[in-house]
Amino acid sequence: MTSTQAEHGRRSQQGQWMEKVKVSIASSRAIRGGNYVQLATVDETGQPHCRTIVFRGFVALPSGGLALKMITDARSDKVSQIQHNRSCEMVWWFSQTSEQYRIAGHLELVAADSTSPWAVAARSEQWNALSDTAKQQFFWSKPGMYDPLVASSVANEGGHGLPPATFLLVLLQPSIVKYLRLSDNATLHEAFLPDGTWERRSSIQY
Amino acid sequence: MTSTQAEHGRRSQQGQWMEKVKVSIASSRAIRGGNYVQLATVDETGQPHCRTIVFRGFVALPSGGLALKMITDARSDKVSQIQHNRSCEMVWWFSQTSEQYRIAGHLELVAADSTSPWAVAARSEQWNALSDTAKQQFFWSKPGMYDPLVASSVANEGGHGLPPATFLLVLLQPSIVKYLRLSDNATLHEAFLPDGTWERRSSIQY
Repeated sequence: MTSTQAEHGRRSQQGQWMEKVKVSIASSRAIRGGNYVQLATVDETGQPHCRTIVFRGFVALPSGGLALKMITDARSDKVSQIQHNRSCEMVWWFSQTSEQYRIAGHLELVAADSTSPWAVAARSEQWNALSDTAKQQFFWSKPGMYDPLVASSVANEGGHGLPPATFLLVLLQPSIVKYLRLSDNATLHEAFLPDGTWERRSSIQY
Repeated sequence: MTSTQAEHGRRSQQGQWMEKVKVSIASSRAIRGGNYVQLATVDETGQPHCRTIVFRGFVALPSGGLALKMITDARSDKVSQIQHNRSCEMVWWFSQTSEQYRIAGHLELVAADSTSPWAVAARSEQWNALSDTAKQQFFWSKPGMYDPLVASSVANEGGHGLPPATFLLVLLQPSIVKYLRLSDNATLHEAFLPDGTWERRSSIQY
């Protein structure tokens, strides 16, 4: 077994990790929880926090960059953490292929008071893509605590109203991606540069 | 469907989450990666970091508390992060039962220079429990980068020597545990008190 070290410093418009992750996603599409990721943030006192969250897809930003989409309840603890410190690292573990992506970057919260037409549309579109069951959670009197009283109202309404103020779209713009394939220890490390390109820091394949 | 709110403030020697997690572990024992967790830490600049790591079991501390065991390479980025800030949050997602445990606490690194007899023994025991393949990684010239040269030496040695200086036992002493069962939104929130007991902050069952 020999190792090959790929060229460092090579730049591309789209990181090589994107090609990889598309394959990983396809290989896990049928797996329940295959789109569950862990998102780490820091609170006002500098303590780390981490929770499982659903990855909702990629979206091209008006700036030309790329973001990963998630959603959250405005009353969730993570919201105040993000408002204080936008830095995050997301971990995506693909159990089918023993691959890990660590995606560090900055988070942006798209709330009801957003004035960017693009963001307003993106938030609305994400809301409309939710199931009625998922929508109901945003009407609970406390986030994360089931409220039987709201169940029927959302169903009756058909769920096609405007998103409530509790519904936030969360955008993660990645700046550093570290990839590891456990089966053979292949790795890839890429960084997003201010000029909008991805630079390969290292890539080891066996 | 009605909700029941369990008593707050009830204290116990062992948190109720321990009873729960034992059941969760048993239900996932046969699942590949069922003992993979995500561990979030903070670096010197206050940025969050998160990675997948293997849970190696529970251990009773000489102090009477309980710790979760992991291992790491002394050259890993997470080590300098932990040396700077011992705070962490571990996420354990059980895909079979749609349960999440968020375990916040403090990390302790047990290195080769540890002088506590208990810690020396615990580190040695953990090393001896590793497979030869797992042991080899700690002899690689760079952590995380496969080195074919070390493969045979560890195998020849039988892997029963003293743990190398690169091998660290990582102990997580939990202080706050938050449990969520996604199937019915049942929750539990417990905190470890200075007197060594666990206090229930909230528990919602449906």
